[in-house]
Parts: sequence; C-alpha cells; structure tokens
Amino acid sequence: MTGATEARIAAVLDRIGRHDGVLNCFTTILSGQALAAARAQDARDAAGEPALPLAGVPFAVKNLFDVEGVTTLAGSKILADQPPAATDAFVVRQLRRAGGILVGCLNMDEFAYGFSTENAHHGRTRNPHDPERMAGGSSGGSAAAVAAGLVPLALGSDTNGSIRVPASLCGVFGLKPTYGRLSRAGAYPFVSSFDHVGPFARTVRELALAYDCMQGDDPHDPVQCTRPIEPTVFGADARPPRVARLRGWFDRGSPEARAAVDRVAEALGGAGDLDLPETDRARSAAFCISASEGGALHLPRLSLRAMEYDPATRERLLAGALLPAAVLVQAQRFRSWYRRQVLTAFEQYDVLLAPATPCMAPRFDDPTILLDDAPVPARANLGLFAQPISFIGLPVVTVPVCEVGALPIGVQLITRPFAEALGLQLAERLEAVGVAGCQALDYV
Amino acid sequence: MTGATEARIAAVLDRIGRHDGVLNCFTTILSGQALAAARAQDARDAAGEPALPLAGVPFAVKNLFDVEGVTTLAGSKILADQPPAATDAFVVRQLRRAGGILVGCLNMDEFAYGFSTENAHHGRTRNPHDPERMAGGSSGGSAAAVAAGLVPLALGSDTNGSIRVPASLCGVFGLKPTYGRLSRAGAYPFVSSFDHVGPFARTVRELALAYDCMQGDDPHDPVQCTRPIEPTVFGADARPPRVARLRGWFDRGSPEARAAVDRVAEALGGAGDLDLPETDRARSAAFCISASEGGALHLPRLSLRAMEYDPATRERLLAGALLPAAVLVQAQRFRSWYRRQVLTAFEQYDVLLAPATPCMAPRFDDPTILLDDAPVPARANLGLFAQPISFIGLPVVTVPVCEVGALPIGVQLITRPFAEALGLQLAERLEAVGVAGCQALDYV
Repeated sequence: MTGATEARIAAVLDRIGRHDGVLNCFTTILSGQALAAARAQDARDAAGEPALPLAGVPFAVKNLFDVEGVTTLAGSKILADQPPAATDAFVVRQLRRAGGILVGCLNMDEFAYGFSTENAHHGRTRNPHDPERMAGGSSGGSAAAVAAGLVPLALGSDTNGSIRVPASLCGVFGLKPTYGRLSRAGAYPFVSSFDHVGPFARTVRELALAYDCMQGDDPHDPVQCTRPIEPTVFGADARPPRVARLRGWFDRGSPEARAAVDRVAEALGGAGDLDLPETDRARSAAFCISASEGGALHLPRLSLRAMEYDPATRERLLAGALLPAAVLVQAQRFRSWYRRQVLTAFEQYDVLLAPATPCMAPRFDDPTILLDDAPVPARANLGLFAQPISFIGLPVVTVPVCEVGALPIGVQLITRPFAEALGLQLAERLEAVGVAGCQALDYV
Repeated sequence: MTGATEARIAAVLDRIGRHDGVLNCFTTILSGQALAAARAQDARDAAGEPALPLAGVPFAVKNLFDVEGVTTLAGSKILADQPPAATDAFVVRQLRRAGGILVGCLNMDEFAYGFSTENAHHGRTRNPHDPERMAGGSSGGSAAAVAAGLVPLALGSDTNGSIRVPASLCGVFGLKPTYGRLSRAGAYPFVSSFDHVGPFARTVRELALAYDCMQGDDPHDPVQCTRPIEPTVFGADARPPRVARLRGWFDRGSPEARAAVDRVAEALGGAGDLDLPETDRARSAAFCISASEGGALHLPRLSLRAMEYDPATRERLLAGALLPAAVLVQAQRFRSWYRRQVLTAFEQYDVLLAPATPCMAPRFDDPTILLDDAPVPARANLGLFAQPISFIGLPVVTVPVCEVGALPIGVQLITRPFAEALGLQLAERLEAVGVAGCQALDYV
C-alpha cells in the first residue's frame, strides 16, 4: 500500500518526467532516494512520530550545492569527472533534517556566472510562462521548477542577482538573505565576498519556513559572522513600514517594471523617493570584483583546461583574473563607501523598493531589453538593479507581481542587514492583498 | 624669567640643533610654536592648574601625520606643493591635548614604502648608535630621534614593520597596536588594510602613557572597528605568561637576534616552541597586498608625475598597481586563512616572541645581512619577521635588547588582538630586570 508521502513524491517525479523535457530544469533526478525517503516518512507517520516542519515536502537544489553521493557540477562540464560529494551542503542537510525530500539538482549558468541559464553543456532552461523566453539566471532551473509547480521549494544562490533575476522572470518568491546569514559550506563558490544562498517558493509562508529551517550555526561555513538565529514570526501587527522607492538608477526599466513597484508601494501605504548616490559605480565595482574573485578561483584550472569551459564564462573569468590589481583595490574601497551610504538610508526608511529586473522575461530569439527606452543586450543587463544591492550584502525578498494575462515581474523588498523577517512580513502582507504572487500554471 | 617647560623645550631645540645635522631625523622643526606652547604650559603651572598627563613633554611625529599649518610630506617631494594641513591628525591632537609639545616632523622612507629611511629627497637618517649604519624604516626619523634623546617620545606608523624595524635598529621601545585600535585619521595612508600608527619611547611607562593618551573614539577614522578604550595598568601581579618562541621562519636571523630572544624568553620564565604554518606565503601576501593597495592609491598621480617619486618607491608602486587582480585575491584569501591559524596559537600561549629584525643595524656601505648564514640584501629583508605579523593586525611591543658595547636589537612581544596591555606589562617586567632597554647615548 502506498503512503501519502510516497504518493506525493511519485506524483512530483511524474510531473517532472512529463514537463522537464521541455523546461529543462533538472540536471539530476534522484527518483530512487526520493521515493525511499518518502517511504521512510510514511513509516514515521504510521508510527505516530511527531511531524517535522517540512515533513514530506519535495525540494530540489541548484546543482552547485553538494548532495551526498552526487557530483557537484556547478553548471560545468569540467567538474563532471570529480568524485561525488561526501556529504550534503549545510543548507541541504538542514532541509532534509526538517523532513524535506530532495528530488533532484537543477540547471544553472556555468559557475553561476550569468543571468539567463543558457548553459553550453546542459542546455537552456525555459520559462514556464512561455518556453520561448528566458527563465533568468543563474538559478534559472530553481525558479522555473518552482514556477512550473514541479517542486514547491528550491534552493539557489545569488551573487549579483542569481536568485532575484529568475524569481522575477518566473514569477516566484525568492529570498536572498543578508551576507553571511545562511551557511555556504558545501555550495560551490563564485565570488566569495558576496555569494549568498537562499530559497525559492510559490508562497511567502513556504519561503520563510524553508529559510527558518536552514538557519543555524555552522563551524564549516567559510563566512564566519555573528549570525543570530531568528525564526520568522508572522502576524505581529507592527507599525506601518517607512517605505522608499529607489529612483534614478533603479527607475530606468520597462513600464511594467515601474508599474509593479507602483502597485507594491501603494499596497504598503505609499512610499517616499530615494536616490542612492553613485549606483552606476556600484554596479561597475560589482562587475570588477566578480570577475577578479571568480577569475582568481578558476585561474589554475583555466590555465590547463580553458576550452572545456562554457565560452560565455571562459573569457570573462580569464579577463577578470588579469584585471590590474589597482582596479580591484578601488572597487573594494568604493564598496565600503557605498555600503556606508546605503546604510544611512535605513535611518529614515525600513524598506527600499526596486524592480528585481528591468523587464519581464526576454525572448531567447530577441535578447534585447529597453533601458531608458533604448535597446540594450538583455543578458548582461538583467542584473542591473540587483547587483548594487547584493554586493553590499543586504537582504532582499523578491515578490512576483503578475497582471492577468501578462508575464510576471519581481519587486525587491530591500531591508537593513539581518532584517529578513521584516521583508518576509511585508511580502506576506502583499500576498494577502493579492498584489504579490502568481497563479499556479497548468503544469501542475 | 624662563619657566621650567620653556627651559626644557629650549634645551630640546638646542640638542636637535647640535645633532640633527648629522643624524637627519627632522624635516621640520617647529621652534616657535613649541616655545609658545611651553610658555603657555608654564603659565598654567603658575596659575596652579591641574597637571595634564603629558604636561610639557616634547614629542615629534613622522612627517606623514597632519600637523595644523604644516604641509604633510609623507616623505615625498611631490606633496610639498600641497597646502598646509588644516587640522592635526587625531593622535597628534590627542597628545597635544594631554599636554605634549610638538617640536617637529621626522624623516621617513617615501610614502612609508621602505625599511631604511634613505630618502631620495630628504636624505638618509643615521643611526645614533653608529652614524655609518641605518636607522631602519620607514619611521627611521622617529626611532633615531628618540634613541638619540632628541625627544623622549615620537610617533610613527607601521604597515610591514615600520615601527618595529627602526625600534630594533635604534634600540628603543615601539608599540604597533592592534589594527584599528588607534585612529588613523590625518595620517597619510599607504596600505589601508594594514596601516597602523603608534609611539616610540625610551621607557615602557612613557610608551604606555603616550599610547593611553592617544586612545579614543574618532568618527573620522577610516577604520571603524569596535575599539575598547583601555588605559594600561601596571603592577597587577598576573599569573606567569604562557610564552612561545616562534621557530622556523622566525629563527633564521643572526646569532645576536636569536640570543636576544633567548634572553627575553628566559626572563619571562621560559618559552615553548611554535612554528606558524606557511609564513613564507604570509610575507609574500603582505608584499603583494602592499604593492597593490599602495599602487592603487598612487596610480592617478604616478600616471602624471612618476619622475618626481623616489626611484626606490616608483617602480614598486607602478608594478603593484599592475599586478593581476587574481594575485591580490589569492593574497587576501590567504591572509584570512593565515590569521585564523595564528589566532589559534593564543588558545595555548599569551605571547609569541620573535626578533623584530633578522640582524642589528646594517652599514650603509655594506647593506647585506645574513639569513640562514647566507648573505641577502638588507633593505628588502629587514622586515622579514615583522611583515607576517602586521598584515594580520596583531599588536606588538618591540623591546630593545642591548649588550654592553654592541648594537641594539629588538624582540617582538606579540599578543592577541587588543591585548596591548599585556605586551606592555611584560615589556615593563623585562625592563625592570634589565633585559630590555638601552642606556642613554651621549647625545643627551
């Protein structure tokens, strides 16, 4: 006799089997171990054991997370000959301990260096809202799998926007926590000084539950910071938030992007205007630091096996490794300055709003977007509004805004360091009034 | 009628006038304002005002500290056409507020990039123990002025050893505090991520008093860290310190360097042996970061006026600015790793001992020193044992050990972050038993 969890996981695997041929979210499907975990859950239920917070919840992870027994690809071909990971990444282990059932690993841009999940080795991930359009990246497999209802929960990573961009284009909730809040141990690095990991979900409660389950101290985390463990609390009636809408740099996207921010601002009771200084430089500095740190990480392997890299990644990593050090020093100095400037905004405001992407999902065959009404290449510019925020480590909840019949677009709720809870509470309020959240697609 | 302080300052100015022609410690002598300050002090004394901690104490500062009304040279020619500083550097102001009387500014390697104070624009500073020998650098003017008794107190800065090296060669006490402990506001930068400022003195009590007077919060300090203000307390009978002698990398200097550490270890009740891992890489990383950060700082001016730099400085700054970013990234990553390794030593030990320099003061005309019994260039290697410690920000008290008839040599007392007080207490104990401290030279 099949238990409830086994049936649920079997149904998930069936859906993946039916739709992933087109969507191409998964690079590994762990059918056997997922069904075994489901049966174990059913046995625990039958034995009357107390329920775990994520009992029986299927989830999948970007393939840069270590999964015991699976080779960590990080979107590459070059790592495919490495041995399987000996243990789970910390956050994967935390989700499994909370009862979550891992069903597979998800596609991404090679080494997380991209915004479109068009992977030379593993193919492009397609947007569930329109398979002729990009899912965004680099955690495109994660966002698309959640948007299509293949799994209710997925993990991604965000260095320059890799959670927020695909969350925006696919119409799901995404959380990029404060730098250092969740352990990165067992997640393949890209830019160590601003790599983050975080969840995607279709509802804020699920997003927060996954996040809460992943919190915790980890002596193996390469980032050791003072990291309070603070489960998210909903329903407390706080004072109305002081909201600012980021103008200037962040106000140059499509009409839909601006309209989405309008709706969110209105639903939160109105917003002031804020123009952060020198944000063009912030984005440039994020690019320079990304290229340098990423290049330094890959240089030993690039010097031996460059041609096995994705062409889209190779040249940027090589160029980054060879940037003059003076550029990197200036970028780092600027970063410290910019962080201080932005932090002063939180003396006046609780949350800052900006589009997560300048536009809705671009078509694969027409990858241009409008910026200040002028066409620019989509792939390099999808992270335009995301990069200046992650490179100073602020927490962001991305909420999807979906007009009927239109593609979704995400809005960033940016809060002060370690104020993830406030972002999640506001996201839930937006969800409750119907401003945030997308209807389920008919993949389910 | 001449008051006591005016007489003291007049005597100091007279000594400077008599000896500085040979020693070349001073680049600016502030006779007028020093005598005016002395008369003001005499007037306060006559009025029965309460005594300040440094009342009437003459001091001088490395010429990279801003002094109101004086152009900050930082050892260069290129800054000589800049306007005078509008205000004192924080630490200069603190010393003046405590009653100290500034008598002048002191010679240094250009932009603090050197270990020998042989300055192309302002000449070489000579060692008061033997004018044919180096004073060390880059704070050579400071150490030599104190050693010669021209002033009892001087300020320097230490990035890769610039307090410890000249303190060692000139036979004075020097304190390089923990990174961030003393405000650097108004001190010309070199390598922002490990520049430190600190005092030189002939006795530990004077050293500690100056240090205590300079402690304090400063909103203008470019380094904002949690900085407890902790006046040094002497005389408390603590448990015997757990002492380790650094072996391996730090054990390759001259017989005199090793003997000095022997004497200090014995006087502290014996020492264990400790070999820090990968210290050769630590020194290389310190070099790379110094060159990159220094190069980035100077690049705009170098690209316009390179030939006005000291030749010894110019090429290193240019090369540093052009180092590949990947090298800098690796050096920074290594630094984090190395700091963690060294910090674990303090679980077992309270203080680590190492020579401050591999040898006593080299002759100007024979600038080679022996390392592992092989001759190597002195100028690049004087900081051999200092660089790996400062680039991870640990506090160090350098104590001079002087055998009768021999040149002095310094020993580093390295303690955990923010444990300057322990280093000073141990230095005082060594001074009390006659192991640390040099006899006054006959300049006085």
